[in-house]
Amino acid sequence: MLQVFPYHILQNFSQKVFLAIGFSEKDATLATKVLLKADLRGIDSHGIARLSGYVRLWEAKRLNANPKVEKVYETPSTATMDGDAGVGLVVAPQAMQVAIEKAKNCGTGWVSVKNSNHFGIAGYHAMMALEEDMIGIALTNASPIVAPTYSIDKLLGTNPIAVAIPALLEPAFVADFATTTAANGKFEILERKGEDAPWGWLQDETGQITTDTQARKKGGALLPLGSDYEHGSHKGYCLGAIVDIFSAVFSGANYASWVPPFVSYLPMPENPVGEGIGHFFGAIRVDAFRPAEDFKKHMDNWINTFRNAKAVEGKKVIIPGDPERFYEAERMEDGIPLMNAVVEDLNKLAEKLGVEKLT
Amino acid sequence: MLQVFPYHILQNFSQKVFLAIGFSEKDATLATKVLLKADLRGIDSHGIARLSGYVRLWEAKRLNANPKVEKVYETPSTATMDGDAGVGLVVAPQAMQVAIEKAKNCGTGWVSVKNSNHFGIAGYHAMMALEEDMIGIALTNASPIVAPTYSIDKLLGTNPIAVAIPALLEPAFVADFATTTAANGKFEILERKGEDAPWGWLQDETGQITTDTQARKKGGALLPLGSDYEHGSHKGYCLGAIVDIFSAVFSGANYASWVPPFVSYLPMPENPVGEGIGHFFGAIRVDAFRPAEDFKKHMDNWINTFRNAKAVEGKKVIIPGDPERFYEAERMEDGIPLMNAVVEDLNKLAEKLGVEKLT
Repeated sequence: MLQVFPYHILQNFSQKVFLAIGFSEKDATLATKVLLKADLRGIDSHGIARLSGYVRLWEAKRLNANPKVEKVYETPSTATMDGDAGVGLVVAPQAMQVAIEKAKNCGTGWVSVKNSNHFGIAGYHAMMALEEDMIGIALTNASPIVAPTYSIDKLLGTNPIAVAIPALLEPAFVADFATTTAANGKFEILERKGEDAPWGWLQDETGQITTDTQARKKGGALLPLGSDYEHGSHKGYCLGAIVDIFSAVFSGANYASWVPPFVSYLPMPENPVGEGIGHFFGAIRVDAFRPAEDFKKHMDNWINTFRNAKAVEGKKVIIPGDPERFYEAERMEDGIPLMNAVVEDLNKLAEKLGVEKLT
Repeated sequence: MLQVFPYHILQNFSQKVFLAIGFSEKDATLATKVLLKADLRGIDSHGIARLSGYVRLWEAKRLNANPKVEKVYETPSTATMDGDAGVGLVVAPQAMQVAIEKAKNCGTGWVSVKNSNHFGIAGYHAMMALEEDMIGIALTNASPIVAPTYSIDKLLGTNPIAVAIPALLEPAFVADFATTTAANGKFEILERKGEDAPWGWLQDETGQITTDTQARKKGGALLPLGSDYEHGSHKGYCLGAIVDIFSAVFSGANYASWVPPFVSYLPMPENPVGEGIGHFFGAIRVDAFRPAEDFKKHMDNWINTFRNAKAVEGKKVIIPGDPERFYEAERMEDGIPLMNAVVEDLNKLAEKLGVEKLT
């Protein structure tokens, strides 16, 4: 069921695919690096398995292979950028870089982006700030598949939040999560296994909670973090809403049900309220509030306190980012496992674009 | 069971109590305004019912009635402030004001605060930004009563997040929520009624989910938003952690299990890692990313889209802040209902301090 590929083989493959659809060498390299970071960190749904999806967006003329990403508005600590319909994999790192430059001057930097596309894992962009001794924040809106509390209409995406916080001797704290009870990729796994979803992940076309994974295709929706009102779904709804507003109402991108779907076979929403999808990035110097050494020492203490907490039998308390870090070390060494179906899909893509197949 | 008091009666009472323990006229007025905002907005657990708790903190010499709140560190868009052990009700608005001033110059302003105490409802402080055509953000850490995913130890507070976003013709979007499945106040209501808690709100002293509200007093803990791992409690844990880090690791306040308890009968944690409890505030000019008129028009459209979504039968989709706004209008007009037990507690306090009783 699985084939394992060394990182550099997938890197070379992805690079050639992006070059074949007209990306510059530099953009193909960057897009590949961001895309494969998902595979390395064990977030398989957001990695190379999506490569043919990006190509289909390009075929549908919804993705510009040579975007000119530009600042269109700014203040000392903020900027709005136009992604020029480029792929988020390339647009987002440029926007995060602007946030970092702003933070160098002002203590913090905040960038909202319109006219972009899917940007891979939010964690990649947030983690860019770590190298600069800054905290990084990355948000994005996404295809509307989530129903706010009591709604039947799908008005939000899985709208992830990533926050990366450096420490001194300890590895960084890296939170990166969808604002839904379960990330979309988990449903694909259940469907493949023919299993029902747990209570609280999904609702049906009348807004009732269901365990039928097929409900997603029959007018149902994913549920916000919290699942139902009694368990705080209104809080998950608030989080998804804040991500949507910061990503799109700030920048002039599409929001709510107007966010363009990632899959190219779904039609574009009518009467768009903005351009493309939206992202939001933040960079905060760790020495913006106290000397960097103080901050990082206390961050080490914070991390060790949580890591060493008394835990439920057979479990331990996890620091956000630990599981992904272990995956990354392992997969960089031992290779990246891909399902046969993904390899077949990639090889069909290779054939179409005249790129050498994976073997 | 309930007595109803006009706002001005409770205002006068609270003012006199704060004056009696040595607050300046100005601070007594401000503390009262912030405290009673909770009662007006229907968040009864955070309002005048806590007044005697604040006085007990002062009696225990853990609250300075005449704090000198000062900036101790800054960059163009950030500052750290020392609350001088003052009550958060008075410290927080001063810190939020600094964030607002920073935003006027830089587009955004961010203030972390150490050496403070409980600040009432987070929403009050976030909403201060609305009057300036800014988005307001308020976070605080709090007494450790929450267990991270898989932890038995209680390392987080209910650590609320408030975000207030202005619109043009529509009332503002005001999210204000604990990062736990259920806010602490809900348990008091259940206990009073002698009812069990729903699944997913609490764990017992072994870390297993329980419906016994008494578990809180027998080594149990509140659960992060998401309840258990399968339903995303690791995401609620991330949110609570981010609030803790921004409030205390930035500022030099106490974090994790070192956060001082609000109730004065619990001992102060040993070997504190900082000073008092911590808060974090943000202010973002709505014209920091696009012209204010554009932002606010689209915010109106966002709000109307969600408010008019197709809803589950008998329900409607709620805009964050709507229920509290309705309460505020109603209670300002018809008065604020207090339980007899609260009135008795306040009258005992009045007697002790030589203040005229509520009748």
